[in-house]
Amino acid sequence: MTIRYPNGKLYTPASSVAKAEKQGKTKDFSFSNRGKTLEDEINEANDYYLERRLAIIHKKPVPVQIVKVEYPSRSAAVIKEAYFRTPSTTDYNGVWNGHYIDFDAKETASKTSFPLKNIHTHQMTHMQQVTEQNGVAFIIIRFSAFERYFIVPYEVLQKAWQAMAHGERKSIPFSTIEKEAYEIPTSYYPRIDYLPVLQQLIVAKSHGFESEEIVE
Amino acid sequence: MTIRYPNGKLYTPASSVAKAEKQGKTKDFSFSNRGKTLEDEINEANDYYLERRLAIIHKKPVPVQIVKVEYPSRSAAVIKEAYFRTPSTTDYNGVWNGHYIDFDAKETASKTSFPLKNIHTHQMTHMQQVTEQNGVAFIIIRFSAFERYFIVPYEVLQKAWQAMAHGERKSIPFSTIEKEAYEIPTSYYPRIDYLPVLQQLIVAKSHGFESEEIVE
Repeated sequence: MTIRYPNGKLYTPASSVAKAEKQGKTKDFSFSNRGKTLEDEINEANDYYLERRLAIIHKKPVPVQIVKVEYPSRSAAVIKEAYFRTPSTTDYNGVWNGHYIDFDAKETASKTSFPLKNIHTHQMTHMQQVTEQNGVAFIIIRFSAFERYFIVPYEVLQKAWQAMAHGERKSIPFSTIEKEAYEIPTSYYPRIDYLPVLQQLIVAKSHGFESEEIVE
Repeated sequence: MTIRYPNGKLYTPASSVAKAEKQGKTKDFSFSNRGKTLEDEINEANDYYLERRLAIIHKKPVPVQIVKVEYPSRSAAVIKEAYFRTPSTTDYNGVWNGHYIDFDAKETASKTSFPLKNIHTHQMTHMQQVTEQNGVAFIIIRFSAFERYFIVPYEVLQKAWQAMAHGERKSIPFSTIEKEAYEIPTSYYPRIDYLPVLQQLIVAKSHGFESEEIVE
């Protein structure tokens, strides 16, 4: 069955997988999810949302400084020299039901905590700015040892970040994340269906996080 | 005087200009604005808004398909082969006072109309999706012959696009744009201060465009 996006583009759920295979990575397509990156999983959810017009969230292209471009005759322009630039924002943004959504994806192998060194200062600044403009800023963390996923609101990150600036610990304990973040239950497809969980966060935010205890 | 962004980054308004100079383009820095691209002008406005924390709107990086990367010893990774990809969305997005903002920039030398061929089908699809999610989608058009700038709401584009699909004209007459779009008056700095004009559009949208006559 041929499925098309609203823009007419062919829907090929295995495309990112095919690309990864081309790059020589071994992939396992069983439900156990081995080998899939967090980015693959988020892209899968975003494609699913886009296809059903539930939310319009895209990954931003990798920023590249282009130095040299060649124009071979009768061919597309070829970039012959370019460099990776540091992104000044987070990787994902978009709109859902009138809410501006802005987040980054982080993975950790740690079983005890999320190391704050995984977040760059400019990303914290960006999430702060988004929050000031009433956008919804957060990170999605995957604890790969447990295969557990959490939406961690900027407000939780900020508290830990400030504590670190005052000489306290450089990571967020897993127990704090279990308590203050919003867990994304995994399912078959999309594997991480994060929108319903985001709804909880948005409700909590609209109550100034007062109702956090009730929501969780 | 050294000005810094909230993220500590040095504020260098002439950077895009310097880059353009490096590319061998001749630039004129007088107030007449000769030689500045619409992209330069929008970046200038966005930098201004970001610096003052008025709105968080960024241009998305140019999407590139990276094929070959080399890692010279003791140097940064060098991209040796890459190709430009077609963007699937618009170029600019962000958040302003809780509103999701999404737009593209288009320039025309025509004195009589805006040719619809300047907009790609996938961009129309994207703006439609954004509008459905209660985001604010539009294009900024610069009529270079007059040096006049307009915010054209997606709704106006859609009407013209549908008419074209029914065999009607393939452009929007300048007179329609003067009547139905929102003109951005030019000023000294930033040259196109589009946020106040966008406010008018948002107010009109919230009234289902009923109050359009009054707003204009």
